[in-house]
This record gives sequence, C-alpha cells and structure tokens, in this order.
Amino acid sequence: MTNPDQNDLFKRIQASFLRQGMMNNLGARLLRVEPGLCEVALPHSERVSQQQGGFHGGAMGALADIAGGYAALTAAPPDMEVTTVEYKINFLASFSGGELRAVGRVVKAGKRIIVTTAEVVHLDASGKPTACAVMQQTIVPVHKTY
Amino acid sequence: MTNPDQNDLFKRIQASFLRQGMMNNLGARLLRVEPGLCEVALPHSERVSQQQGGFHGGAMGALADIAGGYAALTAAPPDMEVTTVEYKINFLASFSGGELRAVGRVVKAGKRIIVTTAEVVHLDASGKPTACAVMQQTIVPVHKTY
Amino acid sequence: MTNPDQNDLFKRIQASFLRQGMMNNLGARLLRVEPGLCEVALPHSERVSQQQGGFHGGAMGALADIAGGYAALTAAPPDMEVTTVEYKINFLASFSGGELRAVGRVVKAGKRIIVTTAEVVHLDASGKPTACAVMQQTIVPVHKTY
Amino acid sequence: MTNPDQNDLFKRIQASFLRQGMMNNLGARLLRVEPGLCEVALPHSERVSQQQGGFHGGAMGALADIAGGYAALTAAPPDMEVTTVEYKINFLASFSGGELRAVGRVVKAGKRIIVTTAEVVHLDASGKPTACAVMQQTIVPVHKTY
Repeated sequence: MTNPDQNDLFKRIQASFLRQGMMNNLGARLLRVEPGLCEVALPHSERVSQQQGGFHGGAMGALADIAGGYAALTAAPPDMEVTTVEYKINFLASFSGGELRAVGRVVKAGKRIIVTTAEVVHLDASGKPTACAVMQQTIVPVHKTY
Repeated sequence: MTNPDQNDLFKRIQASFLRQGMMNNLGARLLRVEPGLCEVALPHSERVSQQQGGFHGGAMGALADIAGGYAALTAAPPDMEVTTVEYKINFLASFSGGELRAVGRVVKAGKRIIVTTAEVVHLDASGKPTACAVMQQTIVPVHKTY
Repeated sequence: MTNPDQNDLFKRIQASFLRQGMMNNLGARLLRVEPGLCEVALPHSERVSQQQGGFHGGAMGALADIAGGYAALTAAPPDMEVTTVEYKINFLASFSGGELRAVGRVVKAGKRIIVTTAEVVHLDASGKPTACAVMQQTIVPVHKTY
Repeated sequence: MTNPDQNDLFKRIQASFLRQGMMNNLGARLLRVEPGLCEVALPHSERVSQQQGGFHGGAMGALADIAGGYAALTAAPPDMEVTTVEYKINFLASFSGGELRAVGRVVKAGKRIIVTTAEVVHLDASGKPTACAVMQQTIVPVHKTY
C-alpha cells in the first residue's frame, strides 16, 4: 500500500512523464516513484530495436536518463522541473524480447546540482532479471516553462 | 562528388542503419559517411519530444550514439559489426523545432577498442546552427549475428 | 579473520600496488581486497591539495581509478594485469583534512570488458563518513610487461 | 608576442595554479592561457608512474582535469573560482618517459554550467607527439574562499 504523499509524488511525476512524446512513442511506462527513486519500464518492440534486433543502446540510454531524471525531480522543489546536464552509461549485455526496467536513484541532492545513478535490468519472458546497463548522471533544477 | 569507395562505405553503413527499428521510428536519416566519420539527422517531431516540447535528451543521446558508432564501423574490418561499450553526453542547450545533426568522428581506432566523439548541432527553420550536445564514446568490434 | 585465499588475493594486488610510484607519492594505502572489491585510503596532505586547500579532484579521481582497477584485477586471470579504458567521476562535495576511502566494486566481469563502480567517502578527524565522489569505469585485461 | 590582457589572464590562472599542492608535487607546469583555453605540462617521473612504469592514469586524469578547469576559469567572472562537477576521460595509449601536454578548451560557457574538453598528448624525448587521452568535463563557477 502506498501512502497519500507517495500518491501525490507519483501523480506529480506522471504529469511530466505523460507530456513526453518520446516515452509514449517508445512505449515506456512509469512504474514506481518514491522520494529519491523512480522506476520505468520499456517492453521490446521494433520501435526500440537496433540492427541486430536487440534493444537499441539509445533506448536503454533514454530509459536510464528518464529514471535518473525523475528520481532527481522527486528531490527538487515542487514548482521546479529538472534538466539533464550530462549522463554516462555503460552497456553490460544486449537483449532481445522481454522488457527493460530502469531504476534511478538520487546519490546527492544539492541546491544547484543533483547527482543520480540508474541501473537497467532486462526481464525475459519468464521474468528472470539480468543486469543490462549502469548510468551516472548530473541534473540541475530549472523553472517550468509550461 | 563522392568517389566509388565512399559510395561503398555509405552503402555498407546504410545497410546496418536501415535495420535499426528505432532510428526509423524516431525519423532519423543517414546523411554522410567517410572513413572515420558519420553524420545523421533527426527532425523535430512529437516522436522525439520531452515534457517541455523540446528534443528529448534520450533522442539526442541515441543520435550521438549512432553517429559515433557508425563512424567507428567505418574503421572496423568489413565483416564486423560494432557495439557501444559506453558513452557520455553533455547537453549544451535545449531546442524545439528544426532538425538535429550529429557528426561522429573516430579519435582512435585500436584493434580492441575504438574511441569516438560526436557533436550534435541544432539547425533552426532558417538553417542556423547552434551547438546542442557533445559526446565521448567507447566502441568494440563484434562479429555479425545476421 | 581473512581466509588464506583472500590473503593470496591481497598479496597479488599489493605487489602491483607497491609498484605504483604515484600512489606511494600521494601517500595512498591498500586497505582491503576481496573477490570483486578493493578499498584504498588517502590521508589529506599538501601533496594532494588544490588551490583552496581541499583534496584535489585529481587525487580523488586517481584513488577511485585505483580502487576500481584493482577490484577488476581480482576478477581477471591470475597472470594478467588490467588497464583503464576510461572512467567518469562525479564530485559530491569538497573536503579538507581527514582521509579519503575509495571502495571499488566489479559490476560486470566479461572476458573482454570489466565494468566497475567506486564510491569515495571522506572520514573527518573523528572518523565520521561523508559521501565524496562516485565513479563508473571500463577496464580491459592486458598482458603483464614486467 | 602575448598582449597585455593575456598576460593578466595568465597571471590570474597562475596564482590559482601555484596554490595547488598536488600539481607542485606531481611536477606539473602551466604553459599557456588564452580566453577559453589552458595548456599544462607534466614530465615523466617516479612521482606519476603506475605499476608498469608508464604515466599513471590518475596523473593523466588530474592533468586533463586541471587543463579543462583552468580553461573554464578564463570564462568565469574575474572574482570567481571554478569547481569540477564531473569529468570523463578515455585513455588512448600508455607512455613512459618524455612529457604529457594537456590542452583544455571551453565548449560552452553558460552562467551556471561550463562544459570543456581536454586533449592529452605525449611528447617523446625527440618531441614527437602522440594522442594519449581525451576528456569531457562539467564545471560550475563558485565563490572564492581564500
């Protein structure tokens, strides 16, 4: 059971998430939001594949970027958005089929700079998880423009 | 005018590029291939937008990854593919409308490791370019599986 | 109590560590070695300071690089050395006095590529720890030349 | 011939550089400062060597960090210092003897974030240059505390 505050947090993040044309296009879903944490999912499809049929590195990168970015947003003031300054991602293995899950976590929430990490795991058809990618990211709070 | 060898190189890269479901989905185009260099383009659309309407960081990352990766492929043996070990991208500004252009360049082509950089530039409706992102990437040659 | 195998592992890593002129110069010490893990320490001194008197970013980077690299070495074949392909480090805060501790951990040990992370923590005079830096790193096994 | 303004810029950077205990310890020298650019040198010695006798990755990282950081400082307001948020460095080859030269360049100087790159080149005894490392870095302006 999620407490009321976490429901509010989920709704706040979801409002931003649903505005992302690209996440909708790729087929990503927002799964979980807690203070300092965000989890997103991306099922395999032709929309996210590379030349050998597996998940595209760009899709893994986008998913990790989102997970880290929304984890950071939970640590920013309620009237702010966040923007990615930079990220670095290592790919550990390539996968086809199943689903990716990215969990972003805040490492340090400073006033000017928020540092996060994300782990991307692949779940096969039976739900078995295998490590897929790790990311390290720098975020800054910015004013909303919408 | 492009010489015959560069036409062959373009065709080789294009054969891999056209197999990428995600690049097709995002609307990316292969523009230019030379030994140690690759340029790709991505017009703005809802398919690649973030919550404020601008280009999604994940789209810039995917485009830079592709540009660097295919630059590396021009430096790999003809019967090999390449795979991204990791990349790191800094976003310099956010943009809406127009088109992104990413140019990937090989910095060092070793037998085991290929290092590349990519510059992403935004072109507005009038074609005016502004620096958008810079990337640094590590690639390894791998055997084709198709 | 450490078991005999871990003593062997410690000695193997220490033999390489003691050959590093720079670690000796900076005043770093090897603290702990386990399969997939390495911890090193660096006390504050003028030898590792920046312009404001705190630990130099280059010293934190070198310490994290070493911790991750020797964690990777525990996962490489016994007759091999390792070399750093690249690393990325985020600095979370600056510190003066006390001691830095860097713990490197293997995230994935592949045949060709080993991925590690490291956390650098600052201990003040009373031993109180504060997060200082996080690193993500790519390593390859190489043949010994000594 | 250097113009008076560049002499002032060099002196401003040098005042900060000479305060760095670690750069003095490693034997680094400030070579060149221009708006948006800084070059530093590091001769080979036991003070900067790794276990195989070559330049330590930590020394290359520290040198690149400094070159990028001081390039950024030339783009910051005159009464500010800068601090490194993060950097990522790829090592292209290892070298022994001779001297390293790192040139840092500002890619984008924003109000809140400065992005730089650095190239590290090795010069052998005859002065022949070979590419050694490339770095990408994020910097923020901070208030002086001295």
